[in-house]
Amino acid sequence: MFFDVAPLEQAAGDQVSVFHNSKYSEELRNTKAGILILSSQNVESSPSNTPILISESPYRSFALIASAFYPQAFSTSMNSTNDRIHPSAKLGTRCQIEPGVVIGENVEIGDNVSIAANTVIGKSVIIGDNTSIGANVTISHSLVGASVVIYPGARIGQAGFGFHMDESGHIQVPQLGRVIIEDGVEIGSNTTIDRGSLQDTVIGAGSRIDNLVQIAHNVQIGKGCVIVAQVGISGSTKIGDFSALAGQVGIAGHLNIGKRTRIAAQSGVMRDVDDGAAIGGSPAVTALQWHRQTVTLAKIAKGRK
Amino acid sequence: MFFDVAPLEQAAGDQVSVFHNSKYSEELRNTKAGILILSSQNVESSPSNTPILISESPYRSFALIASAFYPQAFSTSMNSTNDRIHPSAKLGTRCQIEPGVVIGENVEIGDNVSIAANTVIGKSVIIGDNTSIGANVTISHSLVGASVVIYPGARIGQAGFGFHMDESGHIQVPQLGRVIIEDGVEIGSNTTIDRGSLQDTVIGAGSRIDNLVQIAHNVQIGKGCVIVAQVGISGSTKIGDFSALAGQVGIAGHLNIGKRTRIAAQSGVMRDVDDGAAIGGSPAVTALQWHRQTVTLAKIAKGRK
Amino acid sequence: MFFDVAPLEQAAGDQVSVFHNSKYSEELRNTKAGILILSSQNVESSPSNTPILISESPYRSFALIASAFYPQAFSTSMNSTNDRIHPSAKLGTRCQIEPGVVIGENVEIGDNVSIAANTVIGKSVIIGDNTSIGANVTISHSLVGASVVIYPGARIGQAGFGFHMDESGHIQVPQLGRVIIEDGVEIGSNTTIDRGSLQDTVIGAGSRIDNLVQIAHNVQIGKGCVIVAQVGISGSTKIGDFSALAGQVGIAGHLNIGKRTRIAAQSGVMRDVDDGAAIGGSPAVTALQWHRQTVTLAKIAKGRK
Repeated sequence: MFFDVAPLEQAAGDQVSVFHNSKYSEELRNTKAGILILSSQNVESSPSNTPILISESPYRSFALIASAFYPQAFSTSMNSTNDRIHPSAKLGTRCQIEPGVVIGENVEIGDNVSIAANTVIGKSVIIGDNTSIGANVTISHSLVGASVVIYPGARIGQAGFGFHMDESGHIQVPQLGRVIIEDGVEIGSNTTIDRGSLQDTVIGAGSRIDNLVQIAHNVQIGKGCVIVAQVGISGSTKIGDFSALAGQVGIAGHLNIGKRTRIAAQSGVMRDVDDGAAIGGSPAVTALQWHRQTVTLAKIAKGRK
Repeated sequence: MFFDVAPLEQAAGDQVSVFHNSKYSEELRNTKAGILILSSQNVESSPSNTPILISESPYRSFALIASAFYPQAFSTSMNSTNDRIHPSAKLGTRCQIEPGVVIGENVEIGDNVSIAANTVIGKSVIIGDNTSIGANVTISHSLVGASVVIYPGARIGQAGFGFHMDESGHIQVPQLGRVIIEDGVEIGSNTTIDRGSLQDTVIGAGSRIDNLVQIAHNVQIGKGCVIVAQVGISGSTKIGDFSALAGQVGIAGHLNIGKRTRIAAQSGVMRDVDDGAAIGGSPAVTALQWHRQTVTLAKIAKGRK
Repeated sequence: MFFDVAPLEQAAGDQVSVFHNSKYSEELRNTKAGILILSSQNVESSPSNTPILISESPYRSFALIASAFYPQAFSTSMNSTNDRIHPSAKLGTRCQIEPGVVIGENVEIGDNVSIAANTVIGKSVIIGDNTSIGANVTISHSLVGASVVIYPGARIGQAGFGFHMDESGHIQVPQLGRVIIEDGVEIGSNTTIDRGSLQDTVIGAGSRIDNLVQIAHNVQIGKGCVIVAQVGISGSTKIGDFSALAGQVGIAGHLNIGKRTRIAAQSGVMRDVDDGAAIGGSPAVTALQWHRQTVTLAKIAKGRK
């Protein structure tokens, strides 16, 4: 009997999981899932004692099963009453809640928290002490730490861009995770951070995110990172501690970016990046190679007028 | 006697139109406009029985005439009363309207629609059955289909970046079209979709748009398209059915992008794209050429250290 | 005795300033600051009669001193009462204020101003005559001129991405300036404009800014500029009058971009730009060079298949 869906590394014996991306081969070997969906050519890589379901389109099959467990993935998850502040919400001491703020069911807010006008906090969100939230912000499905600063218009915790697309069309993949924002994080204006699909999206302690940044579902950002305006990070990518991403960088999905990396503005990152690396360009290469390429192309073009 | 302005392919005998871009030569030949504004060198291309106005700056002249027909293009178009929900608005059954929502004059909302807190629906907007709208959204001048999902902070239907700029300065071009969102569309957080100027901006059935995407006035997106985060599509460009645009792609204005195209992340598209093409790079070329360019440059740069 | 912090060119005899970027050598020579923080190797460049404080990390030291003058930089700065419109706010005649609008303490609004639903105006903001503000906008720490148009979801005047980062970690730099929006400016949907840190962020008269644009602290944009969607301008950069920046351009910080410049879409600008220049590419070069580079690379790649 199976009761839920889960990613390979988290699935228990009563849960269904999927192998759909060769980057997760190690997770496949070690999974404790009760049953696995995978394609016929990966049968031999799966743990010998785990029952399998073979599919030509494993993620599509998984999405359909997940949809059966969670029939209605989208909900505004805000307030079910006409009260602006739901009676079940708990507020700490010395909180400053401005006009027009809407706070949903079972929300828990710490001490000395300020929430500016017309911000909306969805049901069951938890917010730590000394956190400041600007005006016109939306937060749902999130666990927000202490001393966090969220600037106006940020959108945190909505469902991500979660569907499986193949020749047969789109299938919605349930988005069931949360956003975990650790202590001391800053999140810029109009930045968007989607909730995880099966795991959580995580922003590590002390990281600072500028305006208009996109952080997709399941992204994990380490501690003390700096992410400048208009960066986009695709789903399930991990960024190591103390990394610095300059403006308008784009990072593909399912990548591992090391610790203390530095990524030049407008870079397009399509591969894993080692700890401490400095990279640039689109597609991104080492900063040294990028500089050489730029100089070389300029010289050749000049010689050819 | 002329009563209105219209684009070449829609103009009737009592309407003024303009020819200002050689991409529209076929529309010029077939136009039914009552009078045409064009530059002296295009006089011979215009239909022989249509009166013409010759201008050195046809679009500027057209913008001035359009402004005379529509003296005040900008209006908040929201609510003219102190009621949050205007008495003339019609709501279907089983709708869930959360606190702080503002609904303007003559809005029509179908059955089973949910609208989350602090969202603003401007006057005369029509919304179909089973549509879900997140918190802090703004919609005006729009016709929204059934089973549409709109995430928090999306801006839909505001006037586009509409002006004519030449040596004499800027002139506002009236923005009079709507946004048509067909059934089953999803629109991501903080995405912006501007209303059309003379035609409508259209998002085809089942298309999915991620967060922080910019869709300019008059853009027409086909059915079943996938548009990843931070893409920008300039005015009047058409995207064919089932095309997939990866993150941070930019597409210039007045282009025809074919059906089932695939455009790599961060590409800059400056030309029309054929059906089924896969392209990449900035400026974008075929995916094969782009790969060769990338490899070639890397090799040459390495040889030159 | 020192009473405040200020940038080199504005500092008076009772103010502390800092020299931390060689681009400001001229400002250093002419400063009237009462005391200067700089590194040991710049001691000889400072005015001979000005007391100095030597630091291995001058901006870090400055940030710490500034934090002492301004202990709490972040505040929602919105409304301190339960009134949606603070009793001390002054509104002109013929204003149209829609439902859900929140207006803070000491706000001054001119005649014939319209403010659409659920917009939030922070304390002490001043707004000129005939200005129109869309729905769900946030404005704080700003001086907005006459006949300005602000589209839905714009965020104006929040604190910028202001901290000093070195090996010892991040230190918050107080953000104390304003946003000055001159007459006739248009600001697009979900665009973000941060308040200055010590100086003001300025948008010159008649400039037009499209959707989803990021304008960082201390940026100065001249008159009549056109800034297309998704452009990002980093801190302290100046853009000359009548310049046109196409979509998705990124500009590094502390640059001088001349008057009447034209910058192609997706360019990455890392150096100063002369008046009247047309540039393109990432990193950006002259439009002519960029074209040659593109053509040359295409030819070489073709020859190598």
